[in-house]
Amino acid sequence: MAGTDASKRAETGGGPAIVLVRPQLGENIGFAARAMLNCGLTDLRLIAPRDGWPNDKARAASAGGDRVIQSARVYAETAEAVADLNLVYATTARPRGMAADVVSPREAAAGLHRAVDAGQAAGVLFGPERSGLTNDDIALADAIMTVPLNPGFSSIQLGHAVMILGYEWFQVGEEAAPTEPPSETLAEGKHRPVAKADLVGFFEHLERELDACGFLHPPEMRPTITRNLRTLFQRASLTDREVRTLRGVVAGLTSHRNRSDKE
Amino acid sequence: MAGTDASKRAETGGGPAIVLVRPQLGENIGFAARAMLNCGLTDLRLIAPRDGWPNDKARAASAGGDRVIQSARVYAETAEAVADLNLVYATTARPRGMAADVVSPREAAAGLHRAVDAGQAAGVLFGPERSGLTNDDIALADAIMTVPLNPGFSSIQLGHAVMILGYEWFQVGEEAAPTEPPSETLAEGKHRPVAKADLVGFFEHLERELDACGFLHPPEMRPTITRNLRTLFQRASLTDREVRTLRGVVAGLTSHRNRSDKE
Repeated sequence: MAGTDASKRAETGGGPAIVLVRPQLGENIGFAARAMLNCGLTDLRLIAPRDGWPNDKARAASAGGDRVIQSARVYAETAEAVADLNLVYATTARPRGMAADVVSPREAAAGLHRAVDAGQAAGVLFGPERSGLTNDDIALADAIMTVPLNPGFSSIQLGHAVMILGYEWFQVGEEAAPTEPPSETLAEGKHRPVAKADLVGFFEHLERELDACGFLHPPEMRPTITRNLRTLFQRASLTDREVRTLRGVVAGLTSHRNRSDKE
Repeated sequence: MAGTDASKRAETGGGPAIVLVRPQLGENIGFAARAMLNCGLTDLRLIAPRDGWPNDKARAASAGGDRVIQSARVYAETAEAVADLNLVYATTARPRGMAADVVSPREAAAGLHRAVDAGQAAGVLFGPERSGLTNDDIALADAIMTVPLNPGFSSIQLGHAVMILGYEWFQVGEEAAPTEPPSETLAEGKHRPVAKADLVGFFEHLERELDACGFLHPPEMRPTITRNLRTLFQRASLTDREVRTLRGVVAGLTSHRNRSDKE
């Protein structure tokens, strides 16, 4: 199979195949497709969908994920659907009595990335809504993936299971990315952190007005109160514009006094 | 507020409240409830659900999560639903132009655990299916939670968004067996984050006075100015005591006007 790595990778959109084994409800196929596209996954494989294929309910429930629905491939048997894959995880609600490795979605996502980065094709099996995967399905997988959840209510919606795996897949890509680009909002003028001089200018303005109205009495309390106020405003990491707004607030609130003092 | 920690925690099932703001489809409320219970969360709050409440479709879609559906509480306004919460995240598809912190679901889950471990009440806002949260909803939150996803297709199903947050919440519990010691400063009364009801009380006091002095004119600018002010104070993660101080500041600065008005 040498030389097929690139085409395999293109075929799988660079990510693992999502293999739904004997899914029952069209809606759930659609929810899974939407979750896949949310996470940049496009290779959907269906094994013997109960209500046939194509399925209008699946398309509607994908809410714009038509691209995934349209390119889905249908197989009769699980073995056929995973034939070209090098690494396969099988999702179960809880570890079975099988002598297979059991991994979390986060560990599975890491394993899938390692495989794909090495030019391999990988996929994850999800069983039918009611019954889950059979032991024969699981026997085709390299390891079992189990989502750690409330043991008292661990029956998870098919689309949710796909979402969790896809989410973890996508997060690995996010974390590996070479650091975030500088935040544009912070770089923009209106979100520029205020210069400390302007911040202190606001503090002094506020404290002058608080002195004038008697709020900072008695004098022995003044240092504590002003320090507490400065601290809380510091903690907000104010922008230039916000400090100008706050100065306007103080001027507005005291305008009546300052006007009548001059009269 | 001493002695209410245990009851608060019992009320919230030990986990954050999931607050669905103006949800449209009953099915999506059901999917969210099921995802919550999968992750051990039980405090569901609904703000003005479009199709009324109770809703049979929500119950059916919860697939056994009736307990969450039945105990859901309905509110008219977002501010009312978060009134008792100390820490609130607002979910958006992508960072808005607002000057608020933006965290990932994993960071939000860590923050929620720290808050709950310190005896605080916490919650996460999720907006309506089509439009997402309004800026006024977001202004009630301490920070924005954004799920890093495929930028070409980031519209995520409501239930999936709840599942991701719940999943991350549950994973922290799974991993963090030893746990950090609860922060003493946060546990102390004077450093307790203010309950949202008291914070909103301060906002309304400030805005009333700013209306009175004409700072919020012209009327078309009022929503932007008040939202910007609310956002900057939210960002400071104010304590109970600080909010009392700020109310004193506003009362002090306006005392002359309010006195002379009465004369």
